[in-house]
Amino acid sequence: MTDVVDRPAGQAGRSAGRDQQPAGGTTAVDVAALGEQLLGKWADIRRHSRQLSGRPELHKTEGLTHTEHRKRAFGQLRYLVENGAVHRAFPASLGGSDDHGGNIAGFEELVTADPSLQIKAGVQWGLFGSAVLHLGTAEHHAKWLPGIMNMDIPGCFAMTETGHGSDVASIATTATFDPAAQEFVLNTPVRAAWKDYIGNAAIDGLGAVVFAQLVTNGVNHGVHAFYVDLRDPETKDFLPGIGGEDDGVKGGLNGIDNGRLHFSNVRIPRTNLLNRYGNVDADGTYTSPISSPGRRFFTMLGTLVQGRVSLDGAAVAASKLALKTAIQYATERRQFNASSHTEEEVLLDYQRHQRRLFTRLATTYAAGFAHEQLLQKFDDVFSGAHDTDEDRQDLETLAAALKPLSTWHALDTLQECREACGGAGFLIENRFASLRADLDVYVTFEGDNTVLLQLVAKRLLADYAKEFRSLDVGVLARYVVSQAAGAAVHRTGLRQVAQFMADTGSVQKAAIALRDEDTQRLLLTDRVQTMIAEVGGALKGTNRLPQQQAAALFNQHQHELIEAAQAHAELLQWEAFTEALANVNDPGTKRVLTWLRDLFGLSLIEKNLSWYLMNGRLSMQRGRTVGEYINRLLVKIRPHALDLVDAFGYGPEHVRAAIATGAERTRQDEARAYFRSQRADGKAPVDEKVLLAKQAAAKASRR
Amino acid sequence: MTDVVDRPAGQAGRSAGRDQQPAGGTTAVDVAALGEQLLGKWADIRRHSRQLSGRPELHKTEGLTHTEHRKRAFGQLRYLVENGAVHRAFPASLGGSDDHGGNIAGFEELVTADPSLQIKAGVQWGLFGSAVLHLGTAEHHAKWLPGIMNMDIPGCFAMTETGHGSDVASIATTATFDPAAQEFVLNTPVRAAWKDYIGNAAIDGLGAVVFAQLVTNGVNHGVHAFYVDLRDPETKDFLPGIGGEDDGVKGGLNGIDNGRLHFSNVRIPRTNLLNRYGNVDADGTYTSPISSPGRRFFTMLGTLVQGRVSLDGAAVAASKLALKTAIQYATERRQFNASSHTEEEVLLDYQRHQRRLFTRLATTYAAGFAHEQLLQKFDDVFSGAHDTDEDRQDLETLAAALKPLSTWHALDTLQECREACGGAGFLIENRFASLRADLDVYVTFEGDNTVLLQLVAKRLLADYAKEFRSLDVGVLARYVVSQAAGAAVHRTGLRQVAQFMADTGSVQKAAIALRDEDTQRLLLTDRVQTMIAEVGGALKGTNRLPQQQAAALFNQHQHELIEAAQAHAELLQWEAFTEALANVNDPGTKRVLTWLRDLFGLSLIEKNLSWYLMNGRLSMQRGRTVGEYINRLLVKIRPHALDLVDAFGYGPEHVRAAIATGAERTRQDEARAYFRSQRADGKAPVDEKVLLAKQAAAKASRR
Repeated sequence: MTDVVDRPAGQAGRSAGRDQQPAGGTTAVDVAALGEQLLGKWADIRRHSRQLSGRPELHKTEGLTHTEHRKRAFGQLRYLVENGAVHRAFPASLGGSDDHGGNIAGFEELVTADPSLQIKAGVQWGLFGSAVLHLGTAEHHAKWLPGIMNMDIPGCFAMTETGHGSDVASIATTATFDPAAQEFVLNTPVRAAWKDYIGNAAIDGLGAVVFAQLVTNGVNHGVHAFYVDLRDPETKDFLPGIGGEDDGVKGGLNGIDNGRLHFSNVRIPRTNLLNRYGNVDADGTYTSPISSPGRRFFTMLGTLVQGRVSLDGAAVAASKLALKTAIQYATERRQFNASSHTEEEVLLDYQRHQRRLFTRLATTYAAGFAHEQLLQKFDDVFSGAHDTDEDRQDLETLAAALKPLSTWHALDTLQECREACGGAGFLIENRFASLRADLDVYVTFEGDNTVLLQLVAKRLLADYAKEFRSLDVGVLARYVVSQAAGAAVHRTGLRQVAQFMADTGSVQKAAIALRDEDTQRLLLTDRVQTMIAEVGGALKGTNRLPQQQAAALFNQHQHELIEAAQAHAELLQWEAFTEALANVNDPGTKRVLTWLRDLFGLSLIEKNLSWYLMNGRLSMQRGRTVGEYINRLLVKIRPHALDLVDAFGYGPEHVRAAIATGAERTRQDEARAYFRSQRADGKAPVDEKVLLAKQAAAKASRR
Repeated sequence: MTDVVDRPAGQAGRSAGRDQQPAGGTTAVDVAALGEQLLGKWADIRRHSRQLSGRPELHKTEGLTHTEHRKRAFGQLRYLVENGAVHRAFPASLGGSDDHGGNIAGFEELVTADPSLQIKAGVQWGLFGSAVLHLGTAEHHAKWLPGIMNMDIPGCFAMTETGHGSDVASIATTATFDPAAQEFVLNTPVRAAWKDYIGNAAIDGLGAVVFAQLVTNGVNHGVHAFYVDLRDPETKDFLPGIGGEDDGVKGGLNGIDNGRLHFSNVRIPRTNLLNRYGNVDADGTYTSPISSPGRRFFTMLGTLVQGRVSLDGAAVAASKLALKTAIQYATERRQFNASSHTEEEVLLDYQRHQRRLFTRLATTYAAGFAHEQLLQKFDDVFSGAHDTDEDRQDLETLAAALKPLSTWHALDTLQECREACGGAGFLIENRFASLRADLDVYVTFEGDNTVLLQLVAKRLLADYAKEFRSLDVGVLARYVVSQAAGAAVHRTGLRQVAQFMADTGSVQKAAIALRDEDTQRLLLTDRVQTMIAEVGGALKGTNRLPQQQAAALFNQHQHELIEAAQAHAELLQWEAFTEALANVNDPGTKRVLTWLRDLFGLSLIEKNLSWYLMNGRLSMQRGRTVGEYINRLLVKIRPHALDLVDAFGYGPEHVRAAIATGAERTRQDEARAYFRSQRADGKAPVDEKVLLAKQAAAKASRR
């Protein structure tokens, strides 16, 4: 699966000193073995999905109108059905394979074909079908899943409203039970309660799972899911009482027909309530296996986590594509001749270019390894292997932590790679701009990144409070010590720093310490713990305050909380990278990946260096070594950069960028050959500057 | 010109406590007066251009194919001609008004209509026409400018080649003089020498200014500009020897037909050399008023600076549009009810939301004030008022410093604003995504931002070296002192910090110090000086090293150099903001703008806090006050946020975002009124949670 482009024969797979770079001693990356490791637990499914994603039928056609693009994407969903690509999560009894992790792994790879296709498939099977599967019961499965699976029923997941996105509990659509008719009556009370941004709503959706406040016998039992027929399958007209609007052109993902929906006294049978977690009897009595309305709500919403998991993986895949193209190009492209009059430098030999691309390469590896852990956790829960409440909470928190970082990282990487390729990067034929536009919304949908990080922060605070409550002496001591250390620093500062500086002695020793895995872990862990302990301390007793004061106090620490959650997520990525290193057998590969992990860890420390300095965790002296050490790592990684992106295993059928085909090398070789031969033949015109220099010299010698 | 949307009558212009926010005491912004100040020296031209840009004829139509968009943009150029919008920089003798600054001011405002229209106008008059004007002589002006001005000759500025973008001196197209025919012969020797990314090249261009190596009598006199007819005006076919390709769809700016061009023995009259800075006589003798080939090259390229100046201004304008929409929306949009059970919070009351938007608002003001200074400098040089070599160099450096920051800032701001508006931000009807896609290339064209910052760094290094050479004792002392202080810190560190800490005494005092204008200036200036002195010291003696070693040494400091250049540019922005404060008369406005300037200054210090700590410029204690002080500034600025974006003076005809029309407020008001009336009528169903709580209470009371 490795993409061997423009490489001398015999160097595929294993190579040192690629693209005429100084070899890193005898160190070399085993590209094939690393590639296999990166494919992870569901390697075969990924391979199958990549094979499919590489087919032209599924590729995004650039320059289409959104109307044309929607038609193409719709057709591609049927193609996925025909090729058995999208039923893995469904029950074996209905032709699926009950494989939740594998389903997501396969789904993620579709992003290389066209993110619109991917997300439209996600709407149909990951949201619409999945809601029927997870929130419905056997009767619902039998009735609707076959049509959903084979695309006879294209459908919507109608949860978000114009007025409520992140705060799902506050949606205003109602489903009121009418016992006389044995029906629920759906209503949209105000404009803000229109369903909005709903995929498949503008054109294609025949059915929908609509989320609404379930009201029966005068009681609102909170948000539940209802199966609703939207359109006449023949005429495609909305059914009576249903209306809507097209969301029109979007910043990206224009293969999906997002739209708005509203309901006026729309009647559906009582049995259309997807009643796994809440049922209404014929007489209107509400029952639920989960007595707490809060827990019931979060359980129902829990099925949404697979969206976050899959976006995390898709974002990593897009980052890999971008880096493959930009690094390949940077090994071929030449600009400016700093070190000689005739030979121009390869872009990737510039320090700044290395910094721009390698730091993001390191983060991509970290995010990829972290994603693999998330996916395994997801599979454990959804397969039922490890499915306790705590497991589900851990999964939720892990997804809420990783999805924001990986999706932001993808946008940042796509943009940096596009800029690193200059004007060529802006051409759609090189795909950065197209992928970036499509992935833009990944940072706010399926959980707004900023909101998700706050969920993580709240979990961290709760854990912190819990650890205190349970009086685990060891843990308490750890927290108290770090808090006390922090407090000491704020008051006296110097002692702490002096101690650290005494520890280090010399710049060289300081760098060695930072290279140490345990030092990196200590620094990253300590920061999360201390930040949470600090905010926890500041918020202590909040629950005894009047609601408004408590909210105000919480708000005063919102920025810190989000920063702490991000630090936690970064630590998770670092730990995942470090754990993955343990599974690398080839010593050369291990060495290079360790440099890359160090680059990731040191980049995090550099980004937050002021924190480490202000809190006495690093001396000024040691702080100054961070940047220098990063620069040394860049030089070490340079000869292996191409191997590290080739190990991603994407072929030309996935990369599909004009500048990643070796075309630039061909152009550069042709140009250099031309000028060399001109110089050799003496045919080149004399440069005026050279002439003037000669004349000046002649003049001087006559004197 | 202020945009008064959804504001209670009588509050326009001057208002405190807007959108039901707690008023900032008696502090209020005089929106009209501030708006006038922001319009700057060329206020009338800006007003005229905004009036034009507000017309539907010039607005971008979203969702067009690139073919349709190109046609629309082409037609719009004629509309600009008919409305006298684009000839200000041309000679009065030809119907222009010799107004260089005004021309750019008017041009910048076009970005609100459609960036494609703006850049296509820039290609036609700012590059193609401007090259004929500035590089040609009277005969050329008479022959071609009228047709260029009135769009009879749509044309290209054919400089960049596939193989050479930033390094213009190395382009490979040749123009060899043939004395027998009295013609230049243009040739594209290799594929890498094709002209690429050239606006108007794919479809519309009839003529072009082609940059090529001028060769005569066997000597290459470097890059010169040649006027070349490209296409038959009737058939639109390429003339013999000329070929090309369409660059196709791009990440944005799809109203412009960028393309590639190549030349095979294309013959043009000798007099088609635009010969202001270099001439070839009939016998092939080359003469130039500028004897140094290097200086001649930079003089010719100097005309390019106006592109950079105008992109700087356009980027600021786009940032203003984005912030107007996002801040307006954030004052209306409500989500989550943290402080009460019934009323949701307005987004702009969340601390993180304030941080996301106000820090960018502050930077936008800083970039706007800095741009006004750049534009004045530009006008001084191009009008001839202050046109020494030094003036031109200063202008080049200023443009090279500011354009990278403002264009990156625009992308960052457009993205943050889009995310701050959630799913609505992703809809094209709200324009963030569209503007961001179009402005993307602003960061790499007309000078790649990374390359420009290196030019700035080299200038700073040269100044540093010069100051040493000239032995100006005061300056030398300053450099030596700051260098020594830096060195002392690296070696001993503690003394310096201890001193700073002794200076401050208390947290409160530290915050007061940071609020102080002189302290901010000192910190920002010191950082630039020290960074440059450090790199200067490290690079000392580079010119005595062999070229390869010197290049390697330079490369080892490339990252630092770029960081130093950025710090310098940020200081320029801060100084411009501070100078502008002196021109504010209204005390309320001055107070609010001072908070905003402080927010800008403190954000810069926070971003680089690790540097200040590592180098002993700030104590750990004082460092910890920076974030707290920023949070306090956010709260102070909050009530004035809407005034600060309204002062930009863009009306609904420029903003054109569905969520900036007050529609969200209407929706929120309708929803709140609905729920209030439901509660008042007792019609609302009882919440299950409330019911359970009551039942639990009843049960407890029975016990």
